[in-house]
Amino acid sequence: MSKYWSDKVKSLKPYIPGEQPKDKKYIKLNTNENPYPPSPKVIQAIKAAANGDLKLYPDPEVEILRNTIANYYGIEKDEVFIGNGSDEVLGFSFMAFFNPGKPILFPDISYSFYKVYANLFDIEYKLVSLDEDFNIPLNEFLKENGGIVIPNPNAPTAKYLEVEKLKKLLEANVNNVVIIDEAYIDFGGESLVKLISDYPNLLVVQTLSKSRSLAGLRVGFAMGNKELIKALNMVKNSINSYTIDRIALAGANAAFVDNDYFETTRKKIVKTRERTIESLRKLGFKVTDSKANFIFISHPKIYAGELFKELKSRGILVRYFKDERIDNYLRVSIGTDDEMNKFIEVLEEIIRT
Amino acid sequence: MSKYWSDKVKSLKPYIPGEQPKDKKYIKLNTNENPYPPSPKVIQAIKAAANGDLKLYPDPEVEILRNTIANYYGIEKDEVFIGNGSDEVLGFSFMAFFNPGKPILFPDISYSFYKVYANLFDIEYKLVSLDEDFNIPLNEFLKENGGIVIPNPNAPTAKYLEVEKLKKLLEANVNNVVIIDEAYIDFGGESLVKLISDYPNLLVVQTLSKSRSLAGLRVGFAMGNKELIKALNMVKNSINSYTIDRIALAGANAAFVDNDYFETTRKKIVKTRERTIESLRKLGFKVTDSKANFIFISHPKIYAGELFKELKSRGILVRYFKDERIDNYLRVSIGTDDEMNKFIEVLEEIIRT
Repeated sequence: MSKYWSDKVKSLKPYIPGEQPKDKKYIKLNTNENPYPPSPKVIQAIKAAANGDLKLYPDPEVEILRNTIANYYGIEKDEVFIGNGSDEVLGFSFMAFFNPGKPILFPDISYSFYKVYANLFDIEYKLVSLDEDFNIPLNEFLKENGGIVIPNPNAPTAKYLEVEKLKKLLEANVNNVVIIDEAYIDFGGESLVKLISDYPNLLVVQTLSKSRSLAGLRVGFAMGNKELIKALNMVKNSINSYTIDRIALAGANAAFVDNDYFETTRKKIVKTRERTIESLRKLGFKVTDSKANFIFISHPKIYAGELFKELKSRGILVRYFKDERIDNYLRVSIGTDDEMNKFIEVLEEIIRT
Repeated sequence: MSKYWSDKVKSLKPYIPGEQPKDKKYIKLNTNENPYPPSPKVIQAIKAAANGDLKLYPDPEVEILRNTIANYYGIEKDEVFIGNGSDEVLGFSFMAFFNPGKPILFPDISYSFYKVYANLFDIEYKLVSLDEDFNIPLNEFLKENGGIVIPNPNAPTAKYLEVEKLKKLLEANVNNVVIIDEAYIDFGGESLVKLISDYPNLLVVQTLSKSRSLAGLRVGFAMGNKELIKALNMVKNSINSYTIDRIALAGANAAFVDNDYFETTRKKIVKTRERTIESLRKLGFKVTDSKANFIFISHPKIYAGELFKELKSRGILVRYFKDERIDNYLRVSIGTDDEMNKFIEVLEEIIRT
């Protein structure tokens, strides 16, 4: 620790992203990336944007992409905010909507970045405990609070909450902002975006990193009432006016334009997921129901930490969280059919020995 | 103002970037962009990076680019931090090194984003008044303070401080971080980066937006003692682990590799600048000495606000700040020779009428 660090930095506990190993080629099922490359039209759009105009600043308003997303979801351009990945969008949202002193609520088992943001911006939080089967106890979110964040589907449990259930939560929290983090919504869930005109307290956050195969391009977005979007823009323009580069803008836009590709790949992943779950259950695994591009699994006979190591030594990377309550589970991203076949084959081998 | 806004957002006064007009084609001398396109090798590198790997997260450590920059400046990889434009790097630096309660110092006339960061992160500041000729009174920075930010060359005045003068300042502030914002250093100044091993309190911030023609790609960086860089990484990893996308990484890296292109274009700009200054002085303009890719000008007979409008109506955009002390000045980016010829021609026309 250095004398030059601010008191703030001295107290930080940063997020630790999943491994991006450089030592050898793994079957990479550890960071919920899409196993399919982005649409060829995205690649084409990026190449076309690689031109002399890069000398000029990008559009700080990101108008074209906001228009495209607004049209896609049947909402207004001014109801869309674009950020450098949904992590940045979430970080800005914590600053924009939550106050120190009034605890916000999120599930005890969920995306571990929420705690990090809260810590960074001095926002108190209370963890709401999931039940034994990792269900989110919605009644706990009806109590007085300073704001709510719920990932839907939840990560790393993969479990999904229906729109009707979340409606109740929105109605009970008319004075607080409710953030629904829909990073994984495209793999079988239904987005709450259709409710933003009914609920001015609802902010829906999505990303192009998962269902649109663009983790490497860093684009995420939020949708909500214009007043919420205005607040996000105020935060953005107080730290970095141009967060989206010209190339990312072009690529992200093309990803929404090529809807056929999106539909084809996301359906493939859902199919592979269902098939994988079936095989795993046959091998004795406990697998939560998933509406995400990953599954959350546990085996009665092999400790998850052990299984993680065994898989890694055999060239398969999955994610293991050494956290209370979930330290006997592995989070496994859904890869291609070939990758998942290999995964199951290796698991059979490990279980047999 | 909405009831959903945090107290923080209610108090924000965001930065307002220069116009990026979409209505018609201007000679754009208002945002200090480089008039020359990026190196053809940058374009090539970007096209090569537009591939299926975009489905994968980028390297959160940005190793390749940090190595390239470290080699370029003869420093260590761990002395380099990469961010989404130098605005983001500066924002993170305010969080990493400055505390609320102990006022930091920066010039009263300088990059207007500093006030915005300070406001966002509740950091008090004292403005140090430039003298009548816009010189920075270095003695004022030797007093007790919570940190220092100085742009060198300063913006919008374009004036440059020699290394020896800044050394004194670094020596007098061994307990505080001194940020030297070198966004414009490549246009004739000498970087302080060679001092980072002598001064653990020195953070040098640079950008690829100006001298490397990549405003549209959003890459900036900081160089300093490893402990300072560690603090910046802690802030980054508390808000967004992957701020640099795969494409930006490839393009930025190529910009450093093609040093010939960089040398050629920056020298061209310096030459055009000197020629422009000469012509303007002949027209009666007061022009500050500039080591930047812009000049700061004032005319004894025409009010700057008026001149701004006249220029705009004739298709030339410059930057006008309606701020105390500088409201009779225009900041003019250095364009190509043709653009500057046209600029001077139009000025002659305006002055004549």
